[in-house]
Amino acid sequence: MDKVTSKKQIFELLKSVRNRKISPKNALSRLQTFPFEDFGYANLDYHREIRQGVGEIIYGQNKTPCQIKNIISNMLNNGLKNILITRISQKTADFLKKQKIDLEYYSIANLAIVKRNKKIKHTGFIIVAAAGTSDIKISEEAAITAEILGNNVKRLYDVGVAGLHRLLAHYDIIIKARVIVAVAGMEGALASVIGGLVSCPVIAVPTSIGYGSNFNGLSALLAMLNSCANGISVVNIDNGFGAGFIASRINKIGRS
Amino acid sequence: MDKVTSKKQIFELLKSVRNRKISPKNALSRLQTFPFEDFGYANLDYHREIRQGVGEIIYGQNKTPCQIKNIISNMLNNGLKNILITRISQKTADFLKKQKIDLEYYSIANLAIVKRNKKIKHTGFIIVAAAGTSDIKISEEAAITAEILGNNVKRLYDVGVAGLHRLLAHYDIIIKARVIVAVAGMEGALASVIGGLVSCPVIAVPTSIGYGSNFNGLSALLAMLNSCANGISVVNIDNGFGAGFIASRINKIGRS
Amino acid sequence: MDKVTSKKQIFELLKSVRNRKISPKNALSRLQTFPFEDFGYANLDYHREIRQGVGEIIYGQNKTPCQIKNIISNMLNNGLKNILITRISQKTADFLKKQKIDLEYYSIANLAIVKRNKKIKHTGFIIVAAAGTSDIKISEEAAITAEILGNNVKRLYDVGVAGLHRLLAHYDIIIKARVIVAVAGMEGALASVIGGLVSCPVIAVPTSIGYGSNFNGLSALLAMLNSCANGISVVNIDNGFGAGFIASRINKIGRS
Amino acid sequence: MDKVTSKKQIFELLKSVRNRKISPKNALSRLQTFPFEDFGYANLDYHREIRQGVGEIIYGQNKTPCQIKNIISNMLNNGLKNILITRISQKTADFLKKQKIDLEYYSIANLAIVKRNKKIKHTGFIIVAAAGTSDIKISEEAAITAEILGNNVKRLYDVGVAGLHRLLAHYDIIIKARVIVAVAGMEGALASVIGGLVSCPVIAVPTSIGYGSNFNGLSALLAMLNSCANGISVVNIDNGFGAGFIASRINKIGRS
Amino acid sequence: MDKVTSKKQIFELLKSVRNRKISPKNALSRLQTFPFEDFGYANLDYHREIRQGVGEIIYGQNKTPCQIKNIISNMLNNGLKNILITRISQKTADFLKKQKIDLEYYSIANLAIVKRNKKIKHTGFIIVAAAGTSDIKISEEAAITAEILGNNVKRLYDVGVAGLHRLLAHYDIIIKARVIVAVAGMEGALASVIGGLVSCPVIAVPTSIGYGSNFNGLSALLAMLNSCANGISVVNIDNGFGAGFIASRINKIGRS
Amino acid sequence: MDKVTSKKQIFELLKSVRNRKISPKNALSRLQTFPFEDFGYANLDYHREIRQGVGEIIYGQNKTPCQIKNIISNMLNNGLKNILITRISQKTADFLKKQKIDLEYYSIANLAIVKRNKKIKHTGFIIVAAAGTSDIKISEEAAITAEILGNNVKRLYDVGVAGLHRLLAHYDIIIKARVIVAVAGMEGALASVIGGLVSCPVIAVPTSIGYGSNFNGLSALLAMLNSCANGISVVNIDNGFGAGFIASRINKIGRS
Amino acid sequence: MDKVTSKKQIFELLKSVRNRKISPKNALSRLQTFPFEDFGYANLDYHREIRQGVGEIIYGQNKTPCQIKNIISNMLNNGLKNILITRISQKTADFLKKQKIDLEYYSIANLAIVKRNKKIKHTGFIIVAAAGTSDIKISEEAAITAEILGNNVKRLYDVGVAGLHRLLAHYDIIIKARVIVAVAGMEGALASVIGGLVSCPVIAVPTSIGYGSNFNGLSALLAMLNSCANGISVVNIDNGFGAGFIASRINKIGRS
Amino acid sequence: MDKVTSKKQIFELLKSVRNRKISPKNALSRLQTFPFEDFGYANLDYHREIRQGVGEIIYGQNKTPCQIKNIISNMLNNGLKNILITRISQKTADFLKKQKIDLEYYSIANLAIVKRNKKIKHTGFIIVAAAGTSDIKISEEAAITAEILGNNVKRLYDVGVAGLHRLLAHYDIIIKARVIVAVAGMEGALASVIGGLVSCPVIAVPTSIGYGSNFNGLSALLAMLNSCANGISVVNIDNGFGAGFIASRINKIGRS
Repeated sequence: MDKVTSKKQIFELLKSVRNRKISPKNALSRLQTFPFEDFGYANLDYHREIRQGVGEIIYGQNKTPCQIKNIISNMLNNGLKNILITRISQKTADFLKKQKIDLEYYSIANLAIVKRNKKIKHTGFIIVAAAGTSDIKISEEAAITAEILGNNVKRLYDVGVAGLHRLLAHYDIIIKARVIVAVAGMEGALASVIGGLVSCPVIAVPTSIGYGSNFNGLSALLAMLNSCANGISVVNIDNGFGAGFIASRINKIGRS
Repeated sequence: MDKVTSKKQIFELLKSVRNRKISPKNALSRLQTFPFEDFGYANLDYHREIRQGVGEIIYGQNKTPCQIKNIISNMLNNGLKNILITRISQKTADFLKKQKIDLEYYSIANLAIVKRNKKIKHTGFIIVAAAGTSDIKISEEAAITAEILGNNVKRLYDVGVAGLHRLLAHYDIIIKARVIVAVAGMEGALASVIGGLVSCPVIAVPTSIGYGSNFNGLSALLAMLNSCANGISVVNIDNGFGAGFIASRINKIGRS
Repeated sequence: MDKVTSKKQIFELLKSVRNRKISPKNALSRLQTFPFEDFGYANLDYHREIRQGVGEIIYGQNKTPCQIKNIISNMLNNGLKNILITRISQKTADFLKKQKIDLEYYSIANLAIVKRNKKIKHTGFIIVAAAGTSDIKISEEAAITAEILGNNVKRLYDVGVAGLHRLLAHYDIIIKARVIVAVAGMEGALASVIGGLVSCPVIAVPTSIGYGSNFNGLSALLAMLNSCANGISVVNIDNGFGAGFIASRINKIGRS
Repeated sequence: MDKVTSKKQIFELLKSVRNRKISPKNALSRLQTFPFEDFGYANLDYHREIRQGVGEIIYGQNKTPCQIKNIISNMLNNGLKNILITRISQKTADFLKKQKIDLEYYSIANLAIVKRNKKIKHTGFIIVAAAGTSDIKISEEAAITAEILGNNVKRLYDVGVAGLHRLLAHYDIIIKARVIVAVAGMEGALASVIGGLVSCPVIAVPTSIGYGSNFNGLSALLAMLNSCANGISVVNIDNGFGAGFIASRINKIGRS
Repeated sequence: MDKVTSKKQIFELLKSVRNRKISPKNALSRLQTFPFEDFGYANLDYHREIRQGVGEIIYGQNKTPCQIKNIISNMLNNGLKNILITRISQKTADFLKKQKIDLEYYSIANLAIVKRNKKIKHTGFIIVAAAGTSDIKISEEAAITAEILGNNVKRLYDVGVAGLHRLLAHYDIIIKARVIVAVAGMEGALASVIGGLVSCPVIAVPTSIGYGSNFNGLSALLAMLNSCANGISVVNIDNGFGAGFIASRINKIGRS
Repeated sequence: MDKVTSKKQIFELLKSVRNRKISPKNALSRLQTFPFEDFGYANLDYHREIRQGVGEIIYGQNKTPCQIKNIISNMLNNGLKNILITRISQKTADFLKKQKIDLEYYSIANLAIVKRNKKIKHTGFIIVAAAGTSDIKISEEAAITAEILGNNVKRLYDVGVAGLHRLLAHYDIIIKARVIVAVAGMEGALASVIGGLVSCPVIAVPTSIGYGSNFNGLSALLAMLNSCANGISVVNIDNGFGAGFIASRINKIGRS
Repeated sequence: MDKVTSKKQIFELLKSVRNRKISPKNALSRLQTFPFEDFGYANLDYHREIRQGVGEIIYGQNKTPCQIKNIISNMLNNGLKNILITRISQKTADFLKKQKIDLEYYSIANLAIVKRNKKIKHTGFIIVAAAGTSDIKISEEAAITAEILGNNVKRLYDVGVAGLHRLLAHYDIIIKARVIVAVAGMEGALASVIGGLVSCPVIAVPTSIGYGSNFNGLSALLAMLNSCANGISVVNIDNGFGAGFIASRINKIGRS
Repeated sequence: MDKVTSKKQIFELLKSVRNRKISPKNALSRLQTFPFEDFGYANLDYHREIRQGVGEIIYGQNKTPCQIKNIISNMLNNGLKNILITRISQKTADFLKKQKIDLEYYSIANLAIVKRNKKIKHTGFIIVAAAGTSDIKISEEAAITAEILGNNVKRLYDVGVAGLHRLLAHYDIIIKARVIVAVAGMEGALASVIGGLVSCPVIAVPTSIGYGSNFNGLSALLAMLNSCANGISVVNIDNGFGAGFIASRINKIGRS
């Protein structure tokens, strides 16, 4: 028996009941089997690839290579492609490749993509700005995520506020972005300074770069949450993926 | 001597030097007097009203009624209107009205607007969702801010996750929003649940509603930063204004 | 048109479609209007009074007397009784009584009950134990909550571990409880000591009683979470209501 | 001289004194030797196996293989069986097996049971729900603990709130549980959502799964303690054993 | 029937059984009625006055004047005197005096003593040293407590380390103390400096005096716990009473 | 007998012993009476006014008007003038004036100076920069402190990083300072931005201005401690006085 | 030229000046060379061994084997013996033995003693009580420290409050101690329970044993600082040495 | 086309425009290419070596040997020398030497200097004081930094407050310093004691030396921020480099 997956399908089901092609009891059964999918929102999972440019996301952290392999297999069997895997080590990527999985690995950001959809059109314009060279790892996690999701990305690295001119030298391009991801550890002031310069949304990513009273990124996190500049919102410490993902959603507003 | 405020003006200045209408020394002086405004970004402040739909924002907290009055006067003298004042008490609002300032006061959100521009066109569609009735104050701060900035806002209040059906009953409208502001205190789970239902950006606002190990909003803040749903970013505890502001910026992408 | 509120009703609806008493379009509309209530769990709210012995719970904290009055009125109009209000002041209680609301007020616990159902049968046996006299307020919140919900409650107050014999003197009765609520501030050791004596579930309630490095109840909270005794779980600081509520649920297992 | 271990034995002792079979001095000595065991509560340790379905529990963490072996030997000499060992490594388990100890090891949960009592009747119905696959380790600690203690356990894994339909698809079974253990890291919202759906007690287990401002489980812990849903109590971060233990105690109320 | 309160009494009871003056059943009943008092430690409460120089201690904080009055009355009825009340306001003290209670009030330390035993012999030599004048309130709580408990106390106030010579000027007397109470807020360095000068035990009392990152005494508390000097132990923030009490116990070792 | 207050005086004392003008016993006594003052450092207190430009400092916080009055009287009797009182209320200042004390009060900074020495020469050049108008109170505490101590002070207020051009407009003057005090609440980014622009020492003062996850100044404090710019050191939250004091010490190096 | 090390020596020096055996200049020089030692308190270091039973203490943590060796050599050259080394690994101890240093190593407590003075008379009676077997390491650090310092020590291990009878079984001996060291991790309730049973000083040692919200000993630390029992003071987490040291100082009061 | 790098050069450029040696368009282009460098502050980077005695600073932490090598090469190509590298391991230093880089390595402080300028004149007088031998590593980071920057440095190690005489023995030299760096872990009292002795600026460096409630340096950090002594400011935990750098800036005031 087929799944009931949309409003239209429920309507068809009801018509079948009316036309006595299906009994009320069987109809009830079909409605119950997928009690939540039939009102649409459950379909998100199945149609996500089409609408969002990425099939599914797998958090690699805390998962064994075998677990990851099994999840990928299930997804591929369900016809998904363009599957993004975060926080995956080189070693695990190599293991998956040996299993004949069509996978691209980005070692700098510990990201991988399975069955990359190369036809995705890149739209809009996202800037990923990083305060220091130590923040590049997380910045790349954001930038590559946004690229895989079909966005044009411009990187501005090593533009921390201790040398303000380095940031200001890019003023012309900064004000043209549709959304900016600001990545910084230590005192995280980059987000505030960028927020004061632009009129687009800024997604701030605190990193755990620092030592002592940095407390693994707490100093940058608190600074970004308390920014005196408007138009800034914040993701978790070191959450480059999350920043790239929400930047993509913002960038695509009115386009998808 | 006039201000040098744009690339074109610098070019004109240089031509004047060439044409000996102005001496190199005087030209240097004019360049130095406004060393940063001349490359454009400093003009943000003066042109902000036109581009963003709000003239200027005054943080009312920690300011005396007299300080606020003086700042408003300066702004009005500079031709600004549609000036938003946050965290302003009824008492201060009454004081300002007595000073003949054209001011609308929103007591539920402690917001005021001076010389409201009633011709602003409202565009897009922002949802402000609140978990409990105690979160309405901060939610209104977000909602009214977004409205003043020219956005259509739909409020969904008392849709906390303890009664999931209350939220799900609005599923049809939730999935139509361009951006959602999710306001919740206590454990802040509303943001994650909404984040799992939609594919638009979600701005999460933790509130200080709660007691005990809530630690004045820390529990909701941490929960929202650690959300397992994608597409969520977070503002400071009780920062309804900030959420409304960034939601407006996101909503207007591709429209302003 | 009536609400569709149960599996049976959906079945009846489907039969009506079959019998052409209702069109597929109208049936779809009825299913959609209450998309989540029709599978049962949404009915929790309406049937809760019958199953749980309390009609509904209103958190009084952060609500104005008027807000509380309106919520009560709505509930009464929906036929609810035995409505519990937590964290409500004497002043608000007096205001509600003046509004002709049939309300009993428990000043020691800041609790009130509207239209108390006096026929509720009290079952089982819950002990509420308090370490010090300063913990009585929260203990009464737990004890009265449990009583209103239809449980037999035995109070053991001032049995803190600094005078161990005071607790041990009640050993005979302690071991007979079906569930124990242990309320303590300061170092919260009462929960561990009781947990080591009994074989029934213990609900630990840290209170904010203390000073200095107590940090408003943090010391007791952490101590209770880290108890070396088995069979203890913990609610929020000062959450007497929550402890009374869960103790009631546990006590009624196999009886409701 | 035999131990005096029960009320009845004290009575016999007193009769012996009366009958001059034992001198008052010797009787006093015997009472003193075990001053606390003779009033019953000390017997908990010896009779625990019979009443609770488990002989004794050994916390494996921070103990050497030799220490664990010695404790087991003592217990076996005292006639105990069905001894549960928590947080024990594969390596230690192997060591113990080589020592001819009759031990079953559950590697996924780092649990072991010595001389498992296979005749224990499994009763009631406990659900262990886990938000993500990374939470399975702690979930299994809870589930296996509950099973060893003689409970029927149903596992629902990967039902986190980011995909709400996955949880709701199990609604029919969820509402039948006598007690639910909700295991989640990150923002820990699963406990609130389940708490809002059911009317049985919910034991929430925060896990340390997450990163950044997760602070090793603090975010989930605070969220669960501050849940807006009723009927939830919380155990320590990663304390799967504790949750399984208290769930068992609750499940067996009125049955033991 | 009389209480059985000592080893000797149990022996007498057993002899009575032997002599058939009392039946085994009655003897068992008497042993059970006071199952814990009969081995001595429960008597602490009744005999404490004699051994420790103070009848009983009442924590005034969080208690109403009526509650305090009732507790005092009970104690007086039980023949206690020299009753110490901590954290009691002038207002409550006045109320108690009006109730004809024989009470001395020490307003600087918010302490009171009921039926002061003026014959207590003062022994030993305790120094209470305070870093700043703002620490005097807590210092007096310690000093008066120690005096009421029968100790000779020498006060050294305003000897903070910012003016080291002020402390060193008292070097001759400092090295003669049997125990020193070091009271300091802010960075709490006084405890370490004193600890480095003497060879007697030092009880450190952090106070909440300070502001900003003092975090209500946390800075002094952590400093004192981490002192590089040996022979220091610490009580809770602002716990002058606790320090005076333990200093008294130390001072009386070998004398009581 | 006169005090022995310097190396020279000790030498004179020893010569007197040699010349038998004073006995060894008396000489010992004089050495012992002031055991620490005689090596110079104790004299700091008496000679401080001459060397540092301020006689003595009284922390007004937590002191009663009477206590402050007594301390002032003692100082005046010892010949001191130019006495600085911090954190003193208008009310206390009025009380002191009524006591005929020659006192100037600075209400914006809650500072007072007794017997101000108007002949102090102002030297060097200190900038006090404040991020927002709410930070002015603490900034004035720093600025007035530095002025009273004899420094030239330039104030730059409302130069927060959200409007970078406001700060950069003062670039010419900023780079001329000998030392800069940077005062900021919220995310405290001002210190980093200034630190990146100048090559003089920067003293950063976090303020408690902010709300939510600001945690009473913690966000700014951590940000300033973790600054990516060199040459910054930090004082306590809201410690304007401390910053003014150390800025003065730095400014006067090589001049006092 | 000899050191001037006591009051008597200063007197002799002054007499020599008087008798012209030494010039004032030379006398001044000798006074200055040891400006602080000459008034007695500096002699603490040299005479400590005699008075306290231990020559000197070396904190082994964070020191290289070579650094430790050099410090020991210097001490031995100065005639010290009975030198205690804390937190020293087996490996370092072996290295020192190879260097011909007369050293006893206590591996369970990571302590060593150089040139142990075996004639030290052991006095008084200290109890070291540990809650769990995992706390034994820190307990032994306390116990061995106290023994080396010349105290009689009785160990009571595995007497945690989860099995109260195990502690109460030792009641007779507990009440005879002059001072008790209570060592516990997790919730640290042992200190409170012991504190309620005895009338001698109790030194509480929180350990870092536990997991999750234990936060490396914070839970036990806060619990012990907030104990409702009187007569308890606290040392740093895992500071067994510190507890043994202060217990020794207390035990020896009136005896040294 | 040459870079425009100073006010004078801009003037020359303007004169060339006047003299028609360069067109306005080309002049604009040259101004724009380096939009921020041309007003002076950007030149800091290029001229820093001359003014500050160090060419550039490279934070070695979190950088790979290759990244460091590339940065050095760029700097050398730009003519810089005297390049300081912090937090660099022996291994990386060896790698760089193999690459023929002229590098001196200071293993105790994990610092290196490339192309050391041996002609730098050492001026002024900075004291670096360390509380314990475990603090020497961070102290050397401060001391060597200051030396490389051209300052005379005096080290005073192992002068912690537990043995006050060790510090006071250096009183004569302490009061002669122009600036003091006070390095201490544990309770960090050294900064307060030194601050009370001197009238020069004190830079306090908390270290992470300690254990338990030290919380990786938090105890010393808070203590130093809350010092009761005046004239102290604080850098991040373990930030020896930062302290040496700011001490150098202070020392050189009026000399550079």
